Amino acid sequence: MLSISEKFARLGTDHAPGQEVRQDRAEQTTALRGEVIPGPPVDFSHGDVNEDAFAPTPGAFEEFVTGVERGGSQAYTEYRGGAELREMLGERLGRFTGSPVSGANELIITPGTQGALFLALGATVNTGDRVAIVRPDYFANRKLVEFLGGEVVPVRMDYLAHSDGAGLDLGELEAAFKSGVKTFLFSNPNNPAGVVYTADEIARIAALATTYGVTVIADQLYSRLLYTGSTYTHLRAGNIDARQVMTIMGPSKTESLSGYRLGVAFGAPHLIERMEKLQAIVSLRAPGYSQAVLRTWFAEPEGWMQDRIARHQAIRDDLMGVFAAVPGLVVRAPQAGSYLFPRLPALDVTLHDFVRALRVQAGVTVTPGTEFSPESTDSVRLNFSQNHEAAVQAAHRLVQLIDRYRA
Amino acid sequence: MLSISEKFARLGTDHAPGQEVRQDRAEQTTALRGEVIPGPPVDFSHGDVNEDAFAPTPGAFEEFVTGVERGGSQAYTEYRGGAELREMLGERLGRFTGSPVSGANELIITPGTQGALFLALGATVNTGDRVAIVRPDYFANRKLVEFLGGEVVPVRMDYLAHSDGAGLDLGELEAAFKSGVKTFLFSNPNNPAGVVYTADEIARIAALATTYGVTVIADQLYSRLLYTGSTYTHLRAGNIDARQVMTIMGPSKTESLSGYRLGVAFGAPHLIERMEKLQAIVSLRAPGYSQAVLRTWFAEPEGWMQDRIARHQAIRDDLMGVFAAVPGLVVRAPQAGSYLFPRLPALDVTLHDFVRALRVQAGVTVTPGTEFSPESTDSVRLNFSQNHEAAVQAAHRLVQLIDRYRA
Repeated sequence: MLSISEKFARLGTDHAPGQEVRQDRAEQTTALRGEVIPGPPVDFSHGDVNEDAFAPTPGAFEEFVTGVERGGSQAYTEYRGGAELREMLGERLGRFTGSPVSGANELIITPGTQGALFLALGATVNTGDRVAIVRPDYFANRKLVEFLGGEVVPVRMDYLAHSDGAGLDLGELEAAFKSGVKTFLFSNPNNPAGVVYTADEIARIAALATTYGVTVIADQLYSRLLYTGSTYTHLRAGNIDARQVMTIMGPSKTESLSGYRLGVAFGAPHLIERMEKLQAIVSLRAPGYSQAVLRTWFAEPEGWMQDRIARHQAIRDDLMGVFAAVPGLVVRAPQAGSYLFPRLPALDVTLHDFVRALRVQAGVTVTPGTEFSPESTDSVRLNFSQNHEAAVQAAHRLVQLIDRYRA
Repeated sequence: MLSISEKFARLGTDHAPGQEVRQDRAEQTTALRGEVIPGPPVDFSHGDVNEDAFAPTPGAFEEFVTGVERGGSQAYTEYRGGAELREMLGERLGRFTGSPVSGANELIITPGTQGALFLALGATVNTGDRVAIVRPDYFANRKLVEFLGGEVVPVRMDYLAHSDGAGLDLGELEAAFKSGVKTFLFSNPNNPAGVVYTADEIARIAALATTYGVTVIADQLYSRLLYTGSTYTHLRAGNIDARQVMTIMGPSKTESLSGYRLGVAFGAPHLIERMEKLQAIVSLRAPGYSQAVLRTWFAEPEGWMQDRIARHQAIRDDLMGVFAAVPGLVVRAPQAGSYLFPRLPALDVTLHDFVRALRVQAGVTVTPGTEFSPESTDSVRLNFSQNHEAAVQAAHRLVQLIDRYRA
């Protein structure tokens, strides 16, 4: 068994998105080349929720204020969240995903979607359990399994080899399930690659989960931000026992409500029961007053979501245009979400040194691919939910830096 | 090893404070006696933060609004919390506890004090580790250890046998430390009993921790709400290696800011590092906008805290007066905090049935003592941070119910 310091040594966060200030303590191991390139700094490690980029949903702040005025009944809810709010969300999420959700028994409100993911894994993974994790996928997935004493069984997703679908290696997935995996966690749309699983891929995941009795945790955080021509398939509405599925969503990304820290998980009642017990000792409940903000979710003003999608799509297309001109750079156009995950041309510095040089010399913060897969040593993730013009300028500076450090 | 369903079967929350609505599914096993007693319902399971009871600190809401206006920089902070805010809090908490706190390295901001407790235990307790837990103490302490795969080593606190100090059995504590305990968690003021450890008790805990190399987690949530004649001793300012102490506080109780879900932990830098890594996968960060509310903490208007203490003390004294007239009821006057923990006279129904009858027949919600110690089958906890008049009326109804169900 690992000692507690060994256990935490594996949970590094210095390169995690939002923690870049901690990297500045580290020394650059190779010399910086050339001068600083001026321009408005852009932090692609997360979305920009300021007014000149993507501001929170209209009415969100007002709902918060109403929540504060409601007083004690809003500050103290059941650990799984206020009953009336859960009923409202259950109805909306059932309609969105194409399969009913009971607000009473099948839904929990959490502090952020990170909280929901932790509870979902904590409710399914015991010491020694094998858990299938996609490579690349959200950076915390692997760490959650390791903290809980589980064993990560990686499954490759060859997103660059496909123009449709995620490219998950279903043979590897079946081999993992055969080897005794009892939980499978994946994000769809994929974070960091922005690809969406086809109806066929989802049907095959459902069939394999059914055959091998695997519980599937589907992180659907970006499933509302779908670009023209993409279609989305909800696993929970497919041919799979409802007791084997947990779905994670939240209003932090597309809706820019991250400052309120809200997430939801919905699915199998016996898992929701466990997740509430775990929430009781991990954080008690989602922020009481903030919960009120969820009333605006799936109830945005007419046309607001379409406009938000169109604005993201326009930024995506401009950035794809900038990157198309770079020899050796490979990137697939995201079908959903706000992440680009370009594979960079060969550099003659390490990825971490390049990422740091980019921040120091060009004011551009990106997340190294190694956060998402140990093999992604040549890729970086950009969250392009940013001021449009600043994002395009920053992409040009990124291209200049690639040329400086090219092998 | 426990299976995951066995593990969660031990983490019951149906009788936990705030979860009473879930008990209503359960059947009362004995018949209710007599009629409903009318009166304004009082939920003693937590404090009342409404305007006619104990409203949040003045200026807290305004700081939240300023936080929202600050935008992205407030929504997204480092996982351990905003750097400037940590520096401000480190300075204030160092002054309060009598020993410096580095905001940079020795402090983390969490979603509620529950979040801080989870991180502190998660950073110190590995599978199979022995952890000393006081009986009675905060209801989640035992469950945290069990979820983390640790083993609870109970240490008795005979609070009713003393009029000064907590009455912790220091011989039992030493025996526990000798038996290989490496972490000791206790609340001071004690939740539920409201007693404060004397300077001598704290010095002896520090000496034992030093001798046996035990890390001590001190939950000081109520240490600001001290009544006339009480003195408080901060463990961290005593004769103990700073690397062995973690202190938990937060503005949720005395300051009635629970709806914002904020807590802090401060102490050993190597533990704070681990706690941030764990926070990264458990909830990422304390609510971004809510963090701004901490600016009001330890910076309340002149005289505000004194007034808040005096108002709580007046309620305490009135409730003590009501209970003094009840034959067979034993209660010690709390020296701090807002909990009363009376031992009831012998009843001829179970404690859980009595607690449910009290809620159904008298509109009075209390927490059964069994949440705090398996031996406290004859006690109930009341959080008297309530509207003064309503609390006194509710206490009278509690006395009537005791008489109805007396053995």
